[in-house]
Amino acid sequence: MKVGILGATGYTGLELIRLLSKHPYAEIVYITSRTFDDKTISEIYPSLNNFCDLSLEKLNLEKAVSLCDLIFTTLPSSYAFKLAEMIEGSQKKLIDLGSDFRFDSFETYEKWYFPKEKVTSYENFNRVYGLPEIYRERIKNVQIVANPGCYPTSVLLGLKPLLTNNLIKDNIIIVDSKSGVSGSGHEPKLGNLFSECNENLRPYNVVKHRHVPEMEQELSKLKKTEVNVIFTPHLVPMTRGILSTIYTKLDSNIEIDEIYSLYKNHYLNDGFVRILKPGLYPSTKDVYGSNFCEIGFELDKKTNTLIIMSAIDNLVKGASGQAVQNMNILFGFLENTGLDIIPIYP
Amino acid sequence: MKVGILGATGYTGLELIRLLSKHPYAEIVYITSRTFDDKTISEIYPSLNNFCDLSLEKLNLEKAVSLCDLIFTTLPSSYAFKLAEMIEGSQKKLIDLGSDFRFDSFETYEKWYFPKEKVTSYENFNRVYGLPEIYRERIKNVQIVANPGCYPTSVLLGLKPLLTNNLIKDNIIIVDSKSGVSGSGHEPKLGNLFSECNENLRPYNVVKHRHVPEMEQELSKLKKTEVNVIFTPHLVPMTRGILSTIYTKLDSNIEIDEIYSLYKNHYLNDGFVRILKPGLYPSTKDVYGSNFCEIGFELDKKTNTLIIMSAIDNLVKGASGQAVQNMNILFGFLENTGLDIIPIYP
Amino acid sequence: MKVGILGATGYTGLELIRLLSKHPYAEIVYITSRTFDDKTISEIYPSLNNFCDLSLEKLNLEKAVSLCDLIFTTLPSSYAFKLAEMIEGSQKKLIDLGSDFRFDSFETYEKWYFPKEKVTSYENFNRVYGLPEIYRERIKNVQIVANPGCYPTSVLLGLKPLLTNNLIKDNIIIVDSKSGVSGSGHEPKLGNLFSECNENLRPYNVVKHRHVPEMEQELSKLKKTEVNVIFTPHLVPMTRGILSTIYTKLDSNIEIDEIYSLYKNHYLNDGFVRILKPGLYPSTKDVYGSNFCEIGFELDKKTNTLIIMSAIDNLVKGASGQAVQNMNILFGFLENTGLDIIPIYP
Amino acid sequence: MKVGILGATGYTGLELIRLLSKHPYAEIVYITSRTFDDKTISEIYPSLNNFCDLSLEKLNLEKAVSLCDLIFTTLPSSYAFKLAEMIEGSQKKLIDLGSDFRFDSFETYEKWYFPKEKVTSYENFNRVYGLPEIYRERIKNVQIVANPGCYPTSVLLGLKPLLTNNLIKDNIIIVDSKSGVSGSGHEPKLGNLFSECNENLRPYNVVKHRHVPEMEQELSKLKKTEVNVIFTPHLVPMTRGILSTIYTKLDSNIEIDEIYSLYKNHYLNDGFVRILKPGLYPSTKDVYGSNFCEIGFELDKKTNTLIIMSAIDNLVKGASGQAVQNMNILFGFLENTGLDIIPIYP
Repeated sequence: MKVGILGATGYTGLELIRLLSKHPYAEIVYITSRTFDDKTISEIYPSLNNFCDLSLEKLNLEKAVSLCDLIFTTLPSSYAFKLAEMIEGSQKKLIDLGSDFRFDSFETYEKWYFPKEKVTSYENFNRVYGLPEIYRERIKNVQIVANPGCYPTSVLLGLKPLLTNNLIKDNIIIVDSKSGVSGSGHEPKLGNLFSECNENLRPYNVVKHRHVPEMEQELSKLKKTEVNVIFTPHLVPMTRGILSTIYTKLDSNIEIDEIYSLYKNHYLNDGFVRILKPGLYPSTKDVYGSNFCEIGFELDKKTNTLIIMSAIDNLVKGASGQAVQNMNILFGFLENTGLDIIPIYP
Repeated sequence: MKVGILGATGYTGLELIRLLSKHPYAEIVYITSRTFDDKTISEIYPSLNNFCDLSLEKLNLEKAVSLCDLIFTTLPSSYAFKLAEMIEGSQKKLIDLGSDFRFDSFETYEKWYFPKEKVTSYENFNRVYGLPEIYRERIKNVQIVANPGCYPTSVLLGLKPLLTNNLIKDNIIIVDSKSGVSGSGHEPKLGNLFSECNENLRPYNVVKHRHVPEMEQELSKLKKTEVNVIFTPHLVPMTRGILSTIYTKLDSNIEIDEIYSLYKNHYLNDGFVRILKPGLYPSTKDVYGSNFCEIGFELDKKTNTLIIMSAIDNLVKGASGQAVQNMNILFGFLENTGLDIIPIYP
Repeated sequence: MKVGILGATGYTGLELIRLLSKHPYAEIVYITSRTFDDKTISEIYPSLNNFCDLSLEKLNLEKAVSLCDLIFTTLPSSYAFKLAEMIEGSQKKLIDLGSDFRFDSFETYEKWYFPKEKVTSYENFNRVYGLPEIYRERIKNVQIVANPGCYPTSVLLGLKPLLTNNLIKDNIIIVDSKSGVSGSGHEPKLGNLFSECNENLRPYNVVKHRHVPEMEQELSKLKKTEVNVIFTPHLVPMTRGILSTIYTKLDSNIEIDEIYSLYKNHYLNDGFVRILKPGLYPSTKDVYGSNFCEIGFELDKKTNTLIIMSAIDNLVKGASGQAVQNMNILFGFLENTGLDIIPIYP
Repeated sequence: MKVGILGATGYTGLELIRLLSKHPYAEIVYITSRTFDDKTISEIYPSLNNFCDLSLEKLNLEKAVSLCDLIFTTLPSSYAFKLAEMIEGSQKKLIDLGSDFRFDSFETYEKWYFPKEKVTSYENFNRVYGLPEIYRERIKNVQIVANPGCYPTSVLLGLKPLLTNNLIKDNIIIVDSKSGVSGSGHEPKLGNLFSECNENLRPYNVVKHRHVPEMEQELSKLKKTEVNVIFTPHLVPMTRGILSTIYTKLDSNIEIDEIYSLYKNHYLNDGFVRILKPGLYPSTKDVYGSNFCEIGFELDKKTNTLIIMSAIDNLVKGASGQAVQNMNILFGFLENTGLDIIPIYP
């Protein structure tokens, strides 16, 4: 299977290459970069030496479509629309690590992302929101997968069993997330400098982060009623990892052991979700470099509030690992092909 | 004024020495250590070379009381009780950086700290909970100051204006705190090793942390009704700093500008509290090494939820700086004497 | 092939398990711990969940020998001697990640490591210093492999081509090494606390580090004359990685391009050694989590001094990865079996 | 005394403001920025809130000269020349934190810094290389102080006693330096991103760093013969701190205790140089935020090589602290005025 990566020099592009280079059925044939198109990818990232020494090319959508059976794109807003139109009717597949296709309605997309053009047929594309633990069956049959955002992945997996079992009372869910700096990408930005992030912790984009509508859309569908998310993302002085701490009011008196059983059973067939026994909490390092989502809980009996803690590696389950998982589903491979990785610790 | 520090080799002891060595009115005359009593403090901490080269002595409460006008203790549970009894009736003062005197009722203390002995006269000691921004006037006249915990300091300062102005609806307040590792002390513990903490973020003691009853006690008094705190502390890969993100439901429709004015006015005479304009958020590095508490907000209009973010240096405003602030009040010095420190950035 | 790991809960033990759990021909059947023998390894290290959930057992050398075809030991001084005696004459193999067998003479070993007992037959064991890039052929036929120290691995690989080609004038070689903190192990030690190491850089054991005699022994054999190493190790605020900066005076005028060719050719058949083109320097992150050693150079023309920079992951090529490489050689597997890992970046 | 800072928003500018804001005799009256000239400095750096809330202005050399008694400049190459010409003949003073005036000969300057214009009168300016521990007396009487580079400061202080006492044999000195990332400045550069620096150690500009000619010039003068420096700087994942490890061959047999006495006596009147007893090594954290230079040694008896380790805070003694020290000397204040700061630990 021939694979292309458009926007290969960002961190999610690099992580895709790391994972796909060891994938038994995928062959990377085309990688592009808008800034480094005169170099090989291993000149940019020497970690790839001898594993992937392909030359970066200038972005050419036609070439991508003609060369590849599957295109991964990490490009900014609107590129995925063009690609989607180009592959319509063909057997080609598209996995978008951007946000073009994450929304059910174009209005929501437009409101939060300000695309330059209107896409009239937005809802008609043969596509799905690519969180396998929710949409596995539909992913098998679509042409376009909208790979979820990093924060939404950690939050949706943390809440799904509660919502589908109708255990949450409130329609307001508080999500306090903490992310490593690699989530901010590979562009030189003042706020991402080592000296600005090290020995520092700071919230950003509080309640206004673009992942809010994405979470609300999917949570509302799971709960079958509109959910509001109060979301505070924080930047943590580490490279990889997201931990989301989620506060929800339970509808009835449930013991923590029952919640554990519920989650455990719910995710029985989801090999990348690890449920921790009561008393244990997740830690980002326990999933470092892997596609796992680790989930733990604590119950505040006095107030019947459940605290759900959900940890992922933002570049793997939060981006490129999930994209490969989606590829595996899309093409009928075993879901953990190329992803059966033990986290690196310490 | 002659000052002693019992338990001088922990990080709060060291920070007391750093601050007191430059204090114009305090002279450190007695420092103790249970493990390093054959050394000078600058042999343990070369950063103190030529600033404080005192010898560490074996703990001797009598000697402490006889030598010092003011005793700071960072010793574990119950030592402060003994000291309190020894200085009763004298002019000597005691500032306890431990938790012996933080509670109004001995039952609460007993339930969370398991002291070996019962203290019958617990409520009779001439003492106060030493958060100057609440109890400044009373601090002036007591003999014993219970220096607040680090997390409670950040939370109480973040909530006081709302509670005293009766703006919070709910009796349940969610506090999601993130702390640097120095809060876990100077003892060699597996979980505090560099390789365990670096590139790692993890919650700990969720809803069970000993700072919960301390926060609930003081918040309930401010709100004049019982408050429940749902508290999740997290360990962050940095040395210093606490950021508490606090979620509260507002009682009525208030604009964020009004909240800003309210806070700004409320803390007009509290020189160590910095209120940030709407749109700005605190960051732990902006208070690094200083006694400031920096507070910012964001309002989620849809749900009328106020998010308060409060940052301190856990070793300064969260411990030793606040202790020096209390000393200044206790002895009638200007409150920022020895504490007029610009945070170190970057 | 049945494999045991004695001392499995240290970081090198954990890394052995990470690598061996994905090795196609090795089955871990016995793991021991002196402190955690009532738990499973994945209770200690949740990163191993579902990959290795074996119970830790109390150390029992007899059991180890009877159960295993190959024993890895990370135990302290002298255990490997006992194991060596026990397997003598059998087909069992031993790879010692400690230092018992790294020396040609017992006197050197004794002088630096102070073993409690004398080992009379030290030189007679069927053993070799397990740096495959020097001793590959001999490793194939021994019973006991002395896995090299982390610093010596980086230094020997950095110098071998120069020494075997007789290009170094001086008998004195200066080695300035920088190591991540995981090299100091998993024991709770004051100096390894996060707050002591973070935002800190410090030298330690200058000229007295136990890896000096190991380096001198092997460098002297390569140069065929006695070499003195002036060695300064430094502790760097990172978890993994060693970079050794080596200063040598060249014997004659050589261009840097010739040196590059020399190294490139020298290591043509050593898949884990990456030689960087002139102008590029190694970086520890470029080998993170992998078994690679990355080597670069710079030439100071004025003084004809060559600066060699050599980077490894101290827990992989500097310890457990090299041990697996040795296992592969010992048992006739492809040398990179289970080690064909792309470094994680960023 | 009225003071201006040209280029106030870089890290050395910020550090100057931190130090000068608490200086009893200096008043900052003019600060400039090429990029943030519509803001106050405390909007850029909230750590300065209430300490310095001056507006940043567009650079105007005339205004600087007319308003200020003393100008600090952190501007790039050539600006200091213009300022020097403008203040010639006046009582105004200039401290250049750049490199314009660090060299004795314009040729050297030109060769390494490529200024756009030729400065014919380079050697005639009334100026001095501002390392107080060498040139204190001359600093008192000049108009222009060339504040030394960060690496040269650590290296010159580490070597001066040996060189002035003629104890070094060789004319070649090996310097292996390790620096925190703040030395690379406040500009958004790819290589300074958190994700690129964290968990990473890498050499850069090996033997070609611009601080080489500066070190060689001053070392040669101290040794009274030409000295060659082989210099390898490394980027370390920490914000502040430089540690230079210096390798020199001693001329004669000296015991380490003699060297200690020599250094101790040599620096008896240099309050910012701390000499460590034999057996102790410096650590960057022990000087964090302070103007100290901490120096330790180890002697390799076999080869008679002395290893000198010298630690500074690159932004204080390596830049802005030293600039304030120079100001104090220039204006006849006590040398540690405003600099009597205890390092922050941990």
